[in-house]
Amino acid sequence: MTVYDVIDRKKRGFALTEGEIRFFVQAVTDGRASDAQIAAFCMAVLWRGMTEEECFFLTDAMARSGDIIPRPAAGGPFADKHSTGGVSDSTSLILVPVLAACGVRCAKYSGRALGHTGGTLDKLESFPGLRVSLTAEEFARQVEEVGCAIAGQTARIVPADKRMYAVRDVTATVDSIPLIASSVMSKKLASFADVILLDVKYGEGAFVRAPEDAVRLARTMVSLGRRAGRTMCARVTCMDEPPGDWVGCRAEVREAVGVLRGEVKNDLSALSLSHAALLLRAALGMTAEQADRRVRAALDSGAALQKLRAMVAAQGGDARAADDFSLLPLAAGRAAVRAEADGYLRVRATPLGLACVELGGGRQKAGDAVDAGAALHLLRRTGDAVRRGDVLAELYFDPARDPAAALGRAREGFSVEGAPPVRQPLVYCTIDKEDD
Amino acid sequence: MTVYDVIDRKKRGFALTEGEIRFFVQAVTDGRASDAQIAAFCMAVLWRGMTEEECFFLTDAMARSGDIIPRPAAGGPFADKHSTGGVSDSTSLILVPVLAACGVRCAKYSGRALGHTGGTLDKLESFPGLRVSLTAEEFARQVEEVGCAIAGQTARIVPADKRMYAVRDVTATVDSIPLIASSVMSKKLASFADVILLDVKYGEGAFVRAPEDAVRLARTMVSLGRRAGRTMCARVTCMDEPPGDWVGCRAEVREAVGVLRGEVKNDLSALSLSHAALLLRAALGMTAEQADRRVRAALDSGAALQKLRAMVAAQGGDARAADDFSLLPLAAGRAAVRAEADGYLRVRATPLGLACVELGGGRQKAGDAVDAGAALHLLRRTGDAVRRGDVLAELYFDPARDPAAALGRAREGFSVEGAPPVRQPLVYCTIDKEDD
Repeated sequence: MTVYDVIDRKKRGFALTEGEIRFFVQAVTDGRASDAQIAAFCMAVLWRGMTEEECFFLTDAMARSGDIIPRPAAGGPFADKHSTGGVSDSTSLILVPVLAACGVRCAKYSGRALGHTGGTLDKLESFPGLRVSLTAEEFARQVEEVGCAIAGQTARIVPADKRMYAVRDVTATVDSIPLIASSVMSKKLASFADVILLDVKYGEGAFVRAPEDAVRLARTMVSLGRRAGRTMCARVTCMDEPPGDWVGCRAEVREAVGVLRGEVKNDLSALSLSHAALLLRAALGMTAEQADRRVRAALDSGAALQKLRAMVAAQGGDARAADDFSLLPLAAGRAAVRAEADGYLRVRATPLGLACVELGGGRQKAGDAVDAGAALHLLRRTGDAVRRGDVLAELYFDPARDPAAALGRAREGFSVEGAPPVRQPLVYCTIDKEDD
Repeated sequence: MTVYDVIDRKKRGFALTEGEIRFFVQAVTDGRASDAQIAAFCMAVLWRGMTEEECFFLTDAMARSGDIIPRPAAGGPFADKHSTGGVSDSTSLILVPVLAACGVRCAKYSGRALGHTGGTLDKLESFPGLRVSLTAEEFARQVEEVGCAIAGQTARIVPADKRMYAVRDVTATVDSIPLIASSVMSKKLASFADVILLDVKYGEGAFVRAPEDAVRLARTMVSLGRRAGRTMCARVTCMDEPPGDWVGCRAEVREAVGVLRGEVKNDLSALSLSHAALLLRAALGMTAEQADRRVRAALDSGAALQKLRAMVAAQGGDARAADDFSLLPLAAGRAAVRAEADGYLRVRATPLGLACVELGGGRQKAGDAVDAGAALHLLRRTGDAVRRGDVLAELYFDPARDPAAALGRAREGFSVEGAPPVRQPLVYCTIDKEDD
């Protein structure tokens, strides 16, 4: 068997055998497969698709391509959540400490900002001194002792996925359901969560535009996880406009803390807290009412905020920032985006995310530095009646920087229409742990 | 515009614009496109296909990606022939000097042996001292002065195709009609032939198995050439069994000389001479009868053989080898392949080509050395009645080499059946210069 043969069979539309898939992933991992061969394979998968069985073997082989993080002996059940990404989506910063405060330990591996989407690791690094590089042992120990950890996966975890993703990213082969599903789920299967919630975004600011495609992706990932023995649930949620009111690392940390204090009420708080309740039901067998009450109590008692402080401190960060926002300073420059006509507003997430990138608050490409103080404050929402000249958003930026390009991008994030645009539902559907 | 965008649009099934195709080929040439991006593009083309217009722009852009060989001011019309390759296909060695002897100058760029297929350059190098690396100026001057030249294209000619082909070769993206057609025709358009004959092989030993696919490929290439202002004709011919009786570099040169002497009569001689006549009709406006008579006269007078000697000498080779086969020695080792049963024989070209590779007479991969003296002599043909023990073929090999693997391969090239197998027609169809 050769790498060429595997590509050729997939190209011809055959379902690959378990042996062929494991051989290919091994060749990706040990370098026998070239980047060109990986690209050809991925495009052939985009073309021909994969059966559920092929997709499972791909996921499993990728999960086993590097280190597997051992499950701590005690302290379970362990929970995890994955979002397919978007703008102002800081649900992890809220949900992880809430769950830990409710008695479900949370082992969360996260990623970096790229393009219009933010990254939890960059946001978390807003806490002065905080480390997101933990060894597998440090990570597992912190989950056991503190109740939660958020870290970046090391190069030794799912190396096959890292190589494949780097190729997909430049070859227009990201948007394949089996490739997305196996990439996400291989990372989950290499870690030890018993209960996993997938938040699959659809809409303008998501990788998947149509809710039907997001449902297919969610169902594919749920079935992969169940086949591997994990308890799975999923939500398909809207990313037409940002769920929170802020875009930018420190600003999003401030907003997340505001939700944990019970002060912020918006789509971000609604989504984060209902995600937490869904995971509590799946992990502890609670009813919906019990779960909602437990989440509310974790906020009201200050236990959730306390878990955030403990996690930050455990990772070497200055936890005082959770109480003293002067330790999370926003950039000093200001510019306003104003309505250019009277009418009804439509907000689009992608240009707002890109505006923050233009301010230095995100990444054009992997490896770029991020200005944690840059931010966009969203003041008006889709459906709002606005008048010409109303301030729709404010930009926060380093005064040494010219905000013209960012302002231009931000303006693309708003249009004023003659009639109120239809708002898509925030939660399109939920796949419960019992649903199949 | 980015390389990513071009891949993405082709992946989504759009027809690319002229600007997009030229941008992509430029990026392949100057290195901005990575091997992975080239592979993804090629697989997307395999998936989505290309319109005739896209294929022309791809061909034209590749042709212009490097040097264009200037057409000599005088001496036209200039002819060229291209075969899609096979086993024992030394038609070029015959047709080129015949055409030159008939007054049509022939400017032929050829390739190397790879896998089961032979390569004209390797065969030609059987003449001691002969150089196949000619500069564009040397090549054009020799065509003008001697009447013909056969050389390898330098790295400066169609560099975009060279890069794309190297990627296609390892990513299972060779078998796409627009990619094959643009690869072949870009090399033709970078040279100056006015009249081009394409010999598109189908069958067991060809890259294209079904004659219908070979016809589609031929028609695509003919229309590309006509769009570029060249006079085009094509033949779809069978490569189920080798057309000549010999496989191996020196052995095939000996056989080609035998055809030029008028001594060899088989499918190879029939094909070569009728190709020559077809090109004469296209280049000089002759009738079929006139062309056949002229070809016959070039053989009978010795003029064709004399052109071969002149070409070999012009390229620094020892032309005495055309008359003294002791200068083209075959290897001294001998082994016979015998019929294992009584019945009717079926011969397959691919295993016979691979048997010669096993003897050192071909290449497993680019860059391998070739033993010019290794050979396979095919003694019986598809449809022949044979008896158990009859010698079907003889292998010629370096006595230091163990012929066991080659014998095994060669045996796969023969099967004995209960009824005479149907022989496919040698010429499936012809596309004349007037046909459309």
